Amino acid sequence: MLAVHLEAGVVTLRNVPVPHPPPGSALLRLLCAGICNTDLELQRGYYGFAGTPGHEFVAEVVDCETPALRGRRVAGEINLACRQCEWCRQGLGRHCPHRTVLGIVNQPGAFQEFFTLPEPNLHLVPDEIPTERAVFTEPLAAACEILDQVDIPRGDTVAVLGDGKLGLLIAMVLNAQGYQVHQFGRHQTKLRIAAGAGVYIQPVDAPLPVAKYRWVVDATGSADGLRAAAAMAQPRGTVILKSTVHGTVAIDSAPLIVNEITLVGSRCGRFEAALPLLSSPLIRLEEMVTAQFPLAEAPRAFGAAATRGALKVLLLP
Amino acid sequence: MLAVHLEAGVVTLRNVPVPHPPPGSALLRLLCAGICNTDLELQRGYYGFAGTPGHEFVAEVVDCETPALRGRRVAGEINLACRQCEWCRQGLGRHCPHRTVLGIVNQPGAFQEFFTLPEPNLHLVPDEIPTERAVFTEPLAAACEILDQVDIPRGDTVAVLGDGKLGLLIAMVLNAQGYQVHQFGRHQTKLRIAAGAGVYIQPVDAPLPVAKYRWVVDATGSADGLRAAAAMAQPRGTVILKSTVHGTVAIDSAPLIVNEITLVGSRCGRFEAALPLLSSPLIRLEEMVTAQFPLAEAPRAFGAAATRGALKVLLLP
Repeated sequence: MLAVHLEAGVVTLRNVPVPHPPPGSALLRLLCAGICNTDLELQRGYYGFAGTPGHEFVAEVVDCETPALRGRRVAGEINLACRQCEWCRQGLGRHCPHRTVLGIVNQPGAFQEFFTLPEPNLHLVPDEIPTERAVFTEPLAAACEILDQVDIPRGDTVAVLGDGKLGLLIAMVLNAQGYQVHQFGRHQTKLRIAAGAGVYIQPVDAPLPVAKYRWVVDATGSADGLRAAAAMAQPRGTVILKSTVHGTVAIDSAPLIVNEITLVGSRCGRFEAALPLLSSPLIRLEEMVTAQFPLAEAPRAFGAAATRGALKVLLLP
Repeated sequence: MLAVHLEAGVVTLRNVPVPHPPPGSALLRLLCAGICNTDLELQRGYYGFAGTPGHEFVAEVVDCETPALRGRRVAGEINLACRQCEWCRQGLGRHCPHRTVLGIVNQPGAFQEFFTLPEPNLHLVPDEIPTERAVFTEPLAAACEILDQVDIPRGDTVAVLGDGKLGLLIAMVLNAQGYQVHQFGRHQTKLRIAAGAGVYIQPVDAPLPVAKYRWVVDATGSADGLRAAAAMAQPRGTVILKSTVHGTVAIDSAPLIVNEITLVGSRCGRFEAALPLLSSPLIRLEEMVTAQFPLAEAPRAFGAAATRGALKVLLLP
């Protein structure tokens, strides 16, 4: 079978045997996968990754222990937790210290024709949801994680900084959940997608407001964005850090302390929170697909995903 | 009357007229003042300060509009708020954007024989509390601020990093409020004060634990401390930033996001929370007084306060 291989920044294709699922895991046949910024970061050398990437997917269950799953379409949680430690017992397997992570840490990813994942990681995709929408379940869950971590009163205004894939999903999720969302970004074509869902788009060329917002989400992926988000928060405000900036960021802690700002790091989320949103017309996913490539053209797909202005690039088997 | 003057890093004494309190303010006669790390930072050039510093004090009310205050011993909140803006209406005058700050921002401080403060800033010191304890009200309130901002379940374990004045007060306040406190520091003589109150002192030479604590307070005043505190927090843990590090701090935001750590900036607190603690035997303040100097010897007092190993240095009129 065909598998994407990423090593030392180079994307290649390999012919490898179909994997045998370990006990408790399912054999999955890829239907659709999405290239995420994390995949591009793996390509840039993050985690010293070498192997098959891919963690946003919809697949068909080919073989598994639970009969009801066979032949069904599934999305899957990417953290493979031990299910026994203190974190797992709290339902926070996403923080299990023994975890591997699909296509990121010690677990071959979804950019191949067949792959395996433990059955408890799988979530059935409702029949009425197209595969090209369901492939967004994982990043949608990451957007939903904000509301799992921070208790923002419904109806409050939230500023979202950044108009990349995650910024758009966050803005649309918060908007769909009843918040007033003010989104700040530099790309009118991207912002227009969120605007179509009812997000209030801020002028691109105006200076960023200072000490204005009680809630700010940084989804810029840049050190400047983190600093700007902190400056936009009002005293006692909360900044949710949604984008990993690699390497160290120089921040001035004095204004954080003087203004008693709270910074909340936020990562993966629960699929249970994301799946119902797939049927909402306020989550405009189709417009976020920049291009689709067959798995055999994965090197070109990675190139397209890294192009300035690109949103989601999909891989199809 | 005698007034301490601080300018370009030099502490001098001046003879100045007794101030006239503006309407709504009281004329106060200094009984005792404390030198805070912020005063030492003002001396190092922070805020470009020039004037009379001092914001930790107990004073006698000499003249004021409210008859019941005259002749009484008072401590005083240091933020002079407008009392009209949105922040002031929420009871958060400490964040009023129009505020001046006693001895720090545009308001002559307490290191002089007489000074003024708005009557609403004053809090009566109970008769049974010695002046040398009551002079700690302001930094105790800063320690109490943690529990006003963060809802830590009573009985939980909290790590406190740093054994300076604020670190000791924070450890003793949390201990007195029913938390298990693990304090980390480098000075056995200082740590012994908190240990006497029941705080659990950590070995000085052992490596700091990693990903161990749900709650961590950084009171080190150093960039290294902030990084160490973040590393000590377990996934989904909270780090309370209690010490201003001047200049920028290089932090790696990736572990904050991957581990979903919350950072909470924390500054001044409510005197109402601090005053009842002054009568607790678990708040060992007398042992924290390194030296006392008359106001006339303020330059020596600043030198003593800046000495390595010093805790609180008091100024008496």
